[in-house]
Amino acid sequence: MERTYRLVIACPDRVGIVAKVTTFLATYNGWLTEASHHSDPTNGWFYMRNEIKASSLPFDLNSFRIAFEPIAREFQMCWHVADSQQPKRIVLMASKESHCLADLLHRWHAKEMDGEIVGVISNHDDLRRMVEWHDIPYYHVPVDPDDKSVAFAEVERLVDALDAEVIVLARYMQILPPELCDRYTGRIINIHHSFLPSFAGARPYHQAYKRGVKLIGATCHYVTQDLDEGPIIEQDVIRVNHSDTIEDMVRLGKDVEKQVLARGLRYHLEDRVIVHENKTIVFE
Amino acid sequence: MERTYRLVIACPDRVGIVAKVTTFLATYNGWLTEASHHSDPTNGWFYMRNEIKASSLPFDLNSFRIAFEPIAREFQMCWHVADSQQPKRIVLMASKESHCLADLLHRWHAKEMDGEIVGVISNHDDLRRMVEWHDIPYYHVPVDPDDKSVAFAEVERLVDALDAEVIVLARYMQILPPELCDRYTGRIINIHHSFLPSFAGARPYHQAYKRGVKLIGATCHYVTQDLDEGPIIEQDVIRVNHSDTIEDMVRLGKDVEKQVLARGLRYHLEDRVIVHENKTIVFE
Amino acid sequence: MERTYRLVIACPDRVGIVAKVTTFLATYNGWLTEASHHSDPTNGWFYMRNEIKASSLPFDLNSFRIAFEPIAREFQMCWHVADSQQPKRIVLMASKESHCLADLLHRWHAKEMDGEIVGVISNHDDLRRMVEWHDIPYYHVPVDPDDKSVAFAEVERLVDALDAEVIVLARYMQILPPELCDRYTGRIINIHHSFLPSFAGARPYHQAYKRGVKLIGATCHYVTQDLDEGPIIEQDVIRVNHSDTIEDMVRLGKDVEKQVLARGLRYHLEDRVIVHENKTIVFE
Amino acid sequence: MERTYRLVIACPDRVGIVAKVTTFLATYNGWLTEASHHSDPTNGWFYMRNEIKASSLPFDLNSFRIAFEPIAREFQMCWHVADSQQPKRIVLMASKESHCLADLLHRWHAKEMDGEIVGVISNHDDLRRMVEWHDIPYYHVPVDPDDKSVAFAEVERLVDALDAEVIVLARYMQILPPELCDRYTGRIINIHHSFLPSFAGARPYHQAYKRGVKLIGATCHYVTQDLDEGPIIEQDVIRVNHSDTIEDMVRLGKDVEKQVLARGLRYHLEDRVIVHENKTIVFE
Repeated sequence: MERTYRLVIACPDRVGIVAKVTTFLATYNGWLTEASHHSDPTNGWFYMRNEIKASSLPFDLNSFRIAFEPIAREFQMCWHVADSQQPKRIVLMASKESHCLADLLHRWHAKEMDGEIVGVISNHDDLRRMVEWHDIPYYHVPVDPDDKSVAFAEVERLVDALDAEVIVLARYMQILPPELCDRYTGRIINIHHSFLPSFAGARPYHQAYKRGVKLIGATCHYVTQDLDEGPIIEQDVIRVNHSDTIEDMVRLGKDVEKQVLARGLRYHLEDRVIVHENKTIVFE
Repeated sequence: MERTYRLVIACPDRVGIVAKVTTFLATYNGWLTEASHHSDPTNGWFYMRNEIKASSLPFDLNSFRIAFEPIAREFQMCWHVADSQQPKRIVLMASKESHCLADLLHRWHAKEMDGEIVGVISNHDDLRRMVEWHDIPYYHVPVDPDDKSVAFAEVERLVDALDAEVIVLARYMQILPPELCDRYTGRIINIHHSFLPSFAGARPYHQAYKRGVKLIGATCHYVTQDLDEGPIIEQDVIRVNHSDTIEDMVRLGKDVEKQVLARGLRYHLEDRVIVHENKTIVFE
Repeated sequence: MERTYRLVIACPDRVGIVAKVTTFLATYNGWLTEASHHSDPTNGWFYMRNEIKASSLPFDLNSFRIAFEPIAREFQMCWHVADSQQPKRIVLMASKESHCLADLLHRWHAKEMDGEIVGVISNHDDLRRMVEWHDIPYYHVPVDPDDKSVAFAEVERLVDALDAEVIVLARYMQILPPELCDRYTGRIINIHHSFLPSFAGARPYHQAYKRGVKLIGATCHYVTQDLDEGPIIEQDVIRVNHSDTIEDMVRLGKDVEKQVLARGLRYHLEDRVIVHENKTIVFE
Repeated sequence: MERTYRLVIACPDRVGIVAKVTTFLATYNGWLTEASHHSDPTNGWFYMRNEIKASSLPFDLNSFRIAFEPIAREFQMCWHVADSQQPKRIVLMASKESHCLADLLHRWHAKEMDGEIVGVISNHDDLRRMVEWHDIPYYHVPVDPDDKSVAFAEVERLVDALDAEVIVLARYMQILPPELCDRYTGRIINIHHSFLPSFAGARPYHQAYKRGVKLIGATCHYVTQDLDEGPIIEQDVIRVNHSDTIEDMVRLGKDVEKQVLARGLRYHLEDRVIVHENKTIVFE
């Protein structure tokens, strides 16, 4: 893969944004390999993602930031630029269920993932052997149901010590405290085992079975203080019918969960997701 | 299509049901063209649909019923038998939106539909010309928002006069009164323009847009007194993304709605649906 | 819908194309409502579609063309600009099967289609009544199997007389002569009832049944001299299984065919398709 | 899971088969938990799968066979009966690509798979560590391009020594010799990385890219002497577009391949597949 810079922008819409940004890039001979735009007429905002060959620019990332800053200020941009060769540092959190974890670990092992898994935190010790086989540190942080604060303080300490930029809840069965959700806002990714907003909360497959739906699904979303209400990154479904028991739904659902989580995480790692007003723009 | 009898059965599960039923059929040289079974271990019920060449049996439908009755009683069966050459009589109800209506009318016109459309009732007069082109009677029954009872009395009168066995709400935008739901229980089919239980109630595409979901859907279900809570017959979804406006969702949704309604209705017309405890068994 | 100009460009890739085009637009206060780009690293070409509020520009279409021409020349662009308020003129061609025709006619009737159906040509007279109900002229042009040239001369004459820009083969069962394919290259859209390149040629559902595939599909493509080999615009599939007869496949396939044709045609009518080297770029 | 016997039957169709079989079962108080039938009117054959609670029958598998044999003979049945508690012995064959192998190994590790992986054979040594972590023996059998017979003799010897009932080609990149295909007919399962019959043969993603298809797929099939022409068990597809490079297609395709192979293999392991005239009946 050729090294690229990814310039991601959200700002109030007006005439001339694309012209200004692309003229800036062209002035420095920046070669666009991918560009995506979105104008939202309902809120008057504009969103943009540009991928530029790093070798075509005379900048390192820092100089890029300095040179672009005046333009960003002029258009009141929320923006960032990332380097494809600085993969994001990821902490995975899991419980006892292994399907999402094993899927992500294998993608990482097979070099399919644009990120670096720097550790796995779990409230159980069951998955240690699987993780350590991949030469990834495993941290067993049990959660005391009567006082969860000790555990979550340790989680926070670990995330900081590992210098993690992304936290992935790969079927971690605990609810994170509001402070953590806030502190890492836009950086915690969860997989919910239903097609949200259907069957939010606990035991979604039991709810789905009871309601007799003909499709079950999974939702990858950013975690916010409002449980299962954060911005949705990706969703998918699979067909079920009357002959599928709850156990069948669980089994079928696992395949959807791991695919949806892997896709959603990939979008995030490649800087393809912009969050705005509790919704996402995903430049696939 | 060869003429068949469709024998549909639900009863408490136990050993020997299939043997008894199929031996009964074999005794009379009945040739099975299709057979579907389902045992539900969670409620202990058994469901069965058999399709038998009519020409292989020495019975008309009435004699079949008399001959089978003792077996049905022995096994406490809820059951019925239908003749593929007596298509069900259907009343369609519509409002101003034409996509579901036009789709069903064309399927009927092209002889794809295993049923007979005997009339269309609408609270508006807009679709009269389209319906009458098909030589189907059109009944304009306006609904007075201050007193809907007059209109629904007329609807009931028409359904009875037309001797309809199935009522299809093809985007009919009125809520039927509880008495009507009860009287025609298991015979009224609705298309809801969302993937239920997500976005029940009014303006589901607006809700879906606001929530930022990545798939939108449609649900075909039997109408009960509990709005949007009846047994689900069929569902499907279509992918959307951030660039889709509410208008786009409406347009994309129409294609899913008409497909899901057509499929759900076909299952009903071919006696493929059994309703039990607010869920359906659909022998596709 | 707000009136827009659609500027569609294909040219050899190099630094500065987007900057040049968007600066041109910004200079004249052009407000982008949608923009899509694609760089193809395998052939070194760049593709671009811009949608601009017409009211934001001081141009009519002709002045636009004059003002943009020097830029187009500099970058060796294949390009065109279209006005969303000048819907393309469409001729539909059909045979006896009505599902695709009825679907397109209804979309046009319901004002869902961004184009104007100016006539229907058929080698049979069966669908006249359906077409004429929509107040669209119907031309019955029988094809003599021993000498098809007379018929196709008449087709050509009609297309010219109707000043049609798009010809849609809505299950027209005749093969167009090479001269016609060439003359209207990139303007004839066909729906093939299989997932190409599987089952090209005649009776694809029979082939699919024989091979025992688990999905059947449909393909919307531009017509070229090489039968079923033209650039693919859109495809989709539907699941089948052992219990589906050829008749079931035909019935299920119809639903896919009409959806795929409607989607493919919409992309064309909205100037979302660029053809290059027998492939399409589709800016959905 | 409750222990069951699975009785799978194919025979010429006639009146009374189901009655005879189910009366046989009922006579011995056999409790059906699942039953599936299919009559094929085009070839006059009947197919049937019954799942019976083992505890409800007074038989072991051998006595079952003896008691049922006269009925089987009377109806000229091809049939077998299997015990859900005797999982089939599986040999996996792989090359260097790990995605299908890792997926199957994890399903086995997570006890999702109804079978026993007794060994992995590969023409390369790359995946040894992954396999041995699961405590499964790994056999490195290099294939000499100038004389493949030595390698395949060793493969045959290993399969026999391991007493394997199923051979799964999990992206094994070698073509098996005709003798092996014949000897293990109906027992070798392959995953082909295209939606067959499209893009049979080598490098299907390159072919798909070149043709510009809008969906790519994967096909799980039994291996026969005719390469990529064996009976299809399962297929699926995923959407691609002009922006997907061959590398993207390969990456997206992997997710489809492993899902399709896992589903196809599960059908086989649960005795849900009947092969007849190069097609499959799959009782999902």
